[in-house]
Amino acid sequence: MAVIRIDQPDDPRIAGFRDIRERDLTGRQGLFVAEGEVVLNVLMSDRSLCRPVAFLLDRKRVEGLADVLAGAADETPVYVASQSVLDAIAGFHLHRGILALGEKPPVRSLETCLAGTGPDAVVVAACGIGNHDNMGGVFRNAAAFGAGAVLLDAHCCDPFYRKAIRVSVGAVLRTPMATGLDALAMVEGLKAAGFEVLALTPGASEPLDRTPRGGRIAIVLGPEGPGLAPAVIQRCRPVGIPMSGGFDSLNVSVASGIALHHFTRRA
Amino acid sequence: MAVIRIDQPDDPRIAGFRDIRERDLTGRQGLFVAEGEVVLNVLMSDRSLCRPVAFLLDRKRVEGLADVLAGAADETPVYVASQSVLDAIAGFHLHRGILALGEKPPVRSLETCLAGTGPDAVVVAACGIGNHDNMGGVFRNAAAFGAGAVLLDAHCCDPFYRKAIRVSVGAVLRTPMATGLDALAMVEGLKAAGFEVLALTPGASEPLDRTPRGGRIAIVLGPEGPGLAPAVIQRCRPVGIPMSGGFDSLNVSVASGIALHHFTRRA
Repeated sequence: MAVIRIDQPDDPRIAGFRDIRERDLTGRQGLFVAEGEVVLNVLMSDRSLCRPVAFLLDRKRVEGLADVLAGAADETPVYVASQSVLDAIAGFHLHRGILALGEKPPVRSLETCLAGTGPDAVVVAACGIGNHDNMGGVFRNAAAFGAGAVLLDAHCCDPFYRKAIRVSVGAVLRTPMATGLDALAMVEGLKAAGFEVLALTPGASEPLDRTPRGGRIAIVLGPEGPGLAPAVIQRCRPVGIPMSGGFDSLNVSVASGIALHHFTRRA
Repeated sequence: MAVIRIDQPDDPRIAGFRDIRERDLTGRQGLFVAEGEVVLNVLMSDRSLCRPVAFLLDRKRVEGLADVLAGAADETPVYVASQSVLDAIAGFHLHRGILALGEKPPVRSLETCLAGTGPDAVVVAACGIGNHDNMGGVFRNAAAFGAGAVLLDAHCCDPFYRKAIRVSVGAVLRTPMATGLDALAMVEGLKAAGFEVLALTPGASEPLDRTPRGGRIAIVLGPEGPGLAPAVIQRCRPVGIPMSGGFDSLNVSVASGIALHHFTRRA
């Protein structure tokens, strides 16, 4: 483990960790920042699809994380700093004291992504999800219920945004995904790969709990306010989650969890 | 409608709206602040259990909201201000331009609360939920699936916190609740009222999807990290949501949505 002490916030070696919030907004060209022990554990696990590039830790955390960090390549730098230097680097108080810079997985096409899923795969296909909490929640649910992949259209936010990774409890780092897709092409591609493509939409007459399970299933989700575009719904089998009178409103992450539970449960 | 123009942020008449964030933290002694049009609509609906005490609006919003505000008692003041005065009152940029001060419903005992529920009621009983997003999410789901009540133990955060109300899409204002309960007394009280009391816990051997539905059902939820106390679980029927290997982690609001869907669906 290459432990390197950092005493100055402007040290060029930790430039990738500097001004985290500003760079969250502009993106990092193939890299992402992971924060906290839970996400670090996923990044370093066998299931991770991402490679750690560097670590930046509160020096008090190094010893306790030695076993986890030992899984990285020998040359991966482990930068350590005092809490105050850490805060100055990040640009805010980093109370978790743990940061990692990671490399996103290679971009996969829709076809490649689907080719890696089994005959009973359930996948999530999201359109226009712009909220990072919801994005993280959808990935967390996908991992919890063993979804084969998450597909995102071009109107979705970046799942590798720091907060989305954190809310996903690291699931973003281990879930096969295809991103930047055209929504209609995504639906057609799913059909071509033998998926039953279900659009989750409040206006559907078929309730989720009566929708048959088994085989390849794709759950298409839209943004909470405007919902899925009619052109997308028309190409799918619309399915709804019946709700109580006068309150026809579920969070999209909750809706994805209910649908994933339905299609992956055994009873 | 008593429309009163406010030109000075320190006008004593709008003291209840001042320094919102600081007062979010200290509480408001029976009052709460509602924010935005969606929540305002719930506050002013027939289903609301809360009374509006005053409104504070961006003067540009008054005309569009006249119909909604007409539902308030004639003497309820409608304060209007420019965006900059509004921001100075609130202490931050209030981009929605809509605030209401409301009165919480009278405190109900557990027994009174349960007496108002039917023979097939599903209620949510939460222990130690300290996160306002999760609290809001649980209430939103409770409303979406028509739960008869939400019960909170003394270790839960205040559901009338501004952000919890917002995340609940106003459900906090229309859901019968009992708060500040002792967790064990809550379980015993539910049993005494004829509820089947189910503890949602990852360690349970009985899967949710095989748990019989019908009759009075209480879903007991715990905090995400530590989970429910063993003493609570022991007094309940433990039920789990089966998850995929190696990722035994669901957000508590998502878990509540899945359980509520299971117990209220018709198929």
